[in-house]
Amino acid sequence: MTERRPRAKDGLDDRLARRVWIENVRPRVDGGEFPVKRVVGEEVVVTADVLADGHDRIAATLRWRPDSEERWREERMTAAGNDAWTASFRVARPEAHRYTVVGWIDEFATWRDELEKKFAAGQDVESELLEGGALVRSAARRAEEPDRAWLADVADRLEAGGDPAARVERALADDLRIHMTRWPDRSRATEHDRVYAVEVNRTRARYGAWYEMFPRSYAREPGTHGTFREAEARLPEIARMGFDVLYLPPIHPIGRSHRKGPNNTLRAGPGDPGSPWAIGAEEGGHTAVHPDLGTLEDFDHFREAAASVGLEVAIDVAFQCSPDHPWVREHPEWFRHRPDGSIKHAENPPKKYEDIYPLRFDGEDWRALWRALRDVVLFWAGRGVRIFRVDNPHTKPLRFWRWLIAGVRERYPEAIFLSEAFTRPKVMYALAKVGFDQSYTYFTWRNTRSELTAYLTELTRSEVREYFRPNLWTNTPDILPEHLQYGGRAAFMARLVLAATLGASYGVYSGYEVLEAEARPGSGEYLDSEKYAVKSRDFRSKGNLAHYVARINAIRRDNPALHSNERLRFHDVDNEQLLFYSKTSEDLDNVILVIVNLDPHHTHAGWVDVPIESLGITEGEVYQVHDLLGEGRFLWRGRRNFVQLDPASSPAQVFRVRRKVRTERDFDYFM
Amino acid sequence: MTERRPRAKDGLDDRLARRVWIENVRPRVDGGEFPVKRVVGEEVVVTADVLADGHDRIAATLRWRPDSEERWREERMTAAGNDAWTASFRVARPEAHRYTVVGWIDEFATWRDELEKKFAAGQDVESELLEGGALVRSAARRAEEPDRAWLADVADRLEAGGDPAARVERALADDLRIHMTRWPDRSRATEHDRVYAVEVNRTRARYGAWYEMFPRSYAREPGTHGTFREAEARLPEIARMGFDVLYLPPIHPIGRSHRKGPNNTLRAGPGDPGSPWAIGAEEGGHTAVHPDLGTLEDFDHFREAAASVGLEVAIDVAFQCSPDHPWVREHPEWFRHRPDGSIKHAENPPKKYEDIYPLRFDGEDWRALWRALRDVVLFWAGRGVRIFRVDNPHTKPLRFWRWLIAGVRERYPEAIFLSEAFTRPKVMYALAKVGFDQSYTYFTWRNTRSELTAYLTELTRSEVREYFRPNLWTNTPDILPEHLQYGGRAAFMARLVLAATLGASYGVYSGYEVLEAEARPGSGEYLDSEKYAVKSRDFRSKGNLAHYVARINAIRRDNPALHSNERLRFHDVDNEQLLFYSKTSEDLDNVILVIVNLDPHHTHAGWVDVPIESLGITEGEVYQVHDLLGEGRFLWRGRRNFVQLDPASSPAQVFRVRRKVRTERDFDYFM
Repeated sequence: MTERRPRAKDGLDDRLARRVWIENVRPRVDGGEFPVKRVVGEEVVVTADVLADGHDRIAATLRWRPDSEERWREERMTAAGNDAWTASFRVARPEAHRYTVVGWIDEFATWRDELEKKFAAGQDVESELLEGGALVRSAARRAEEPDRAWLADVADRLEAGGDPAARVERALADDLRIHMTRWPDRSRATEHDRVYAVEVNRTRARYGAWYEMFPRSYAREPGTHGTFREAEARLPEIARMGFDVLYLPPIHPIGRSHRKGPNNTLRAGPGDPGSPWAIGAEEGGHTAVHPDLGTLEDFDHFREAAASVGLEVAIDVAFQCSPDHPWVREHPEWFRHRPDGSIKHAENPPKKYEDIYPLRFDGEDWRALWRALRDVVLFWAGRGVRIFRVDNPHTKPLRFWRWLIAGVRERYPEAIFLSEAFTRPKVMYALAKVGFDQSYTYFTWRNTRSELTAYLTELTRSEVREYFRPNLWTNTPDILPEHLQYGGRAAFMARLVLAATLGASYGVYSGYEVLEAEARPGSGEYLDSEKYAVKSRDFRSKGNLAHYVARINAIRRDNPALHSNERLRFHDVDNEQLLFYSKTSEDLDNVILVIVNLDPHHTHAGWVDVPIESLGITEGEVYQVHDLLGEGRFLWRGRRNFVQLDPASSPAQVFRVRRKVRTERDFDYFM
Repeated sequence: MTERRPRAKDGLDDRLARRVWIENVRPRVDGGEFPVKRVVGEEVVVTADVLADGHDRIAATLRWRPDSEERWREERMTAAGNDAWTASFRVARPEAHRYTVVGWIDEFATWRDELEKKFAAGQDVESELLEGGALVRSAARRAEEPDRAWLADVADRLEAGGDPAARVERALADDLRIHMTRWPDRSRATEHDRVYAVEVNRTRARYGAWYEMFPRSYAREPGTHGTFREAEARLPEIARMGFDVLYLPPIHPIGRSHRKGPNNTLRAGPGDPGSPWAIGAEEGGHTAVHPDLGTLEDFDHFREAAASVGLEVAIDVAFQCSPDHPWVREHPEWFRHRPDGSIKHAENPPKKYEDIYPLRFDGEDWRALWRALRDVVLFWAGRGVRIFRVDNPHTKPLRFWRWLIAGVRERYPEAIFLSEAFTRPKVMYALAKVGFDQSYTYFTWRNTRSELTAYLTELTRSEVREYFRPNLWTNTPDILPEHLQYGGRAAFMARLVLAATLGASYGVYSGYEVLEAEARPGSGEYLDSEKYAVKSRDFRSKGNLAHYVARINAIRRDNPALHSNERLRFHDVDNEQLLFYSKTSEDLDNVILVIVNLDPHHTHAGWVDVPIESLGITEGEVYQVHDLLGEGRFLWRGRRNFVQLDPASSPAQVFRVRRKVRTERDFDYFM
């Protein structure tokens, strides 16, 4: 209730006489300051506390509408106990929707209850029947035909005198209740004075398998700088692995000043390609394509070739410049200057990044800079790109992103923004609040059962889930987790299954499928990182995971339970090295149970605790679980069942629960 | 952040360039819609999440002011980890206060950190020293003398050239940091755009022992209708028991139509006095005094007599009328009418309360009614009453109370309102949100250890504590709990100790001290209830609790730990019939441990788990606990200690922890 304490002498404005009180409307983010998020087709289940003084009956309705429509739609709310009321609506279009709650005293329901009790107690109800007649007659005046005539007729009968029992029966009949519910007296209804927003995007904002690749590493001639045209040859293989999104690091000209050499060394040799994140050279900046990759048209061709095999291309938005970026010359005021007039390079003292100039977002000319940056995104959107992976968004102001994303979404409602914010939790969450559809997470460093359970529970069960959508990455060009460095093939398989089944969105960086695991000594980074070099890989190497990846992505596609994180639940298993969880589709038809051996070195076994109640299975019942990864089928019974996983073959099982097990009763001759 | 998504084409208004982000300011009620509550002298500890992009250092300040002042005061906030910041202020006056948070990038602190790291790494810092000189010079321009000259001098030195080590030492010196903190650059500060309110009342709103009495029962001649003058004789005895507030049921003329007889029978005999809650007769309504009690002047005299022995009189605000109330004739439009034109009496079908007409708060003439009701409270406030116990507030609209309490408080800031809302939890809490200072609770029906622990934890540890202050009643004229009916003297003692030590505010209804326990058969109500009859009691009866009550109230007065519920904590004890808890004063000097045997029939013993860490006591340390009720002193050691309580003597011990125990080291000749 945002109404303020009355300030005027009396302050007795009309709204004060409304008896119904509405509070605690959910879902909402920060009291309604930010929208909650859904994708097209999802439901918004709204609850609110709707109270009134005394014992009168209450009615409440959920009001909602797409942003582009003026007219509110309504769903009648039902009482959920303890003064909470609930109703829901489904968002059908990729645009923001609004919702709020209205409540009023239901005088007819109140009267009906009282009449019933008094009549049952043998009291004289003549006066009550006249009151009821007046209520019904007033509803008739609000009603349209044919209800109007019908209600007027009932009012006549209630007031007609004669046998009270017959009139009470007429008054309490269900048809009258239904008619009266259609024409309520809402003249004194309380309209909750806050309207909440839900941001609606397409399904890909919630669900997708991402693959990251550097196009320059796919030259026909290994070791040379590849082009978009050459990289197209790799697309069918990525598509066969079942990915949905193909994410490219920056594709722009790379600076030459202070260009980094192999393994992040300070001096690049003449043949070293440099880091794609050092954006801008004499050939252009954020709206240009690196000449060694090809032309803008080659990029378009690549994007379309990818689309033709079912891959949507995502580009990198890295708002920083190399010293050779055209903006350095054209707009020096967009950068920070040192007392000697030179531009400040990036640093994290004592570390220096002399190949990078950060932008200054709150300088004198910030408006022009912000517009130029938004126009970069609009430029690529204009060339058909709809997914933007944003580099280090936490080093740019939150209000900048709020403004940019809103501005882009106004023209491209289906644009998706992924935040690469490996930063402190509250900053990560704030970026999601201001509009990022997805975010990188700490999953990459979470390995033990307690770590994974605690973190995924926070992401999927706390208020965070209303606005923060995790994208779980197994690895990135910056991060080769220790677990992969030492865990071998089993660790790669386990982390893949975890990412792909814990997260509706997940990603791998290329090389994962061929078990790349060599780190710079003592670091969590790749040796001979692709960030500073062209890399060639043998994707047909022995033991590669291409088929395993394809299998897990096919399982994802076939099972709606894995398209959302909303019904992820962790379950008990009596071995700390095993992680056991379930996901269920919204219609509850599709139930997936996943069991992962987190120890890449040893076989582990244990008894799992299957959540049979939520599956509608009784303790004695036999049901089938079908391992979609290994194709084994098992008959399980009741709650406790045995599992054993040998990491040498597969460290995980992904079961689909198949309820119906044939018994003699299904046999033709039974009976 | 209430700023909206930019709607204009660009929406690049100035505030967008502010890099600091402020959210999650606490305390707040419903996102700031309602004030939090404090009493004079209490602290408001404010926390907020203050974030910014990148790695720059942040500074934040808490702004606060009393409502009557224009100028904000400020307390610098300190970082509390995980991007949370905190500071506090103390409310010194009984008026509303406001608070909010301001944050900015601390450029000097950021620069200082970087300089330190770069210099330590042996890098050239000439440019950094010039940057620092510029920062200090800019602070000098903002500063007043003598800081201005001092800062200008430092700026000169930093920029002067020469030995960098000396200049770095000058730059990093603490005195410079302190001077710079005094003159920050706040030109780009983010001012959180929500201002929060704290309602401040006098201490009695939080802490007090209440006693309820019907003055008519204190005639000199037992069995006749007593007057205020006669009842004055009882005041010294109530004062000796140590109560603070004396609450009187309605003192107004009582209706004659449908007057209730003894034990709530439908027909009153000629000598039956009726229920004081059936307010109004030909002698007057809510601003009149019942002639059998005396005159308005007699009431004033009674109030002053009470004050002279330290008792503040609270009156009952019961907004309902008997059929004989003057308003029924003067303002029939303030009531509901039946089709035959008669006024509807109160009912809870099939029960009828024909001696009561409820008021209609949303009728056509609601404004005049609301004003009249507010004027009733103002009338009694004008005669010196400052505490109002409100009868059944949950049967009147929430917005009515919000308006009435604000209106009264504007003229009488020290007015206290106690809500007698024995109703559903959300309605109870909503009444507290709209302004009631205290509320009745479910304590009256909570008896077991798990019930008491769960309920008091909800009241004192959840967000509820910011606005809902419990007043724990052992009994009321309406409620004689079963536990008292069957538990005998030990139950009365235990429930008294629980109410008086669990609750900073608590109350008893007269008769409690003489163990009145006879109920109407099969009910939770008193036999021969004082509500419908004059009652005479022998307050000197054998076994009466007057001394025990006086003792517990004296303990309350002497121990600040018992003046608030904020630091109530429950602790373990290995016997389910024992309840063990502690309270601590704000300065932590006063620590009270309470152990209650909840079983009135049997002796129980057990090992308690003393929270020694929070007392600064080590596992091996010996300390003294002093039973303030029984006067026994015990030497306890470490965490686990033994207790045994025989309900026949006292079912409770109230220990004050006395840290210092003398050992040989305190003896003169030791050493």
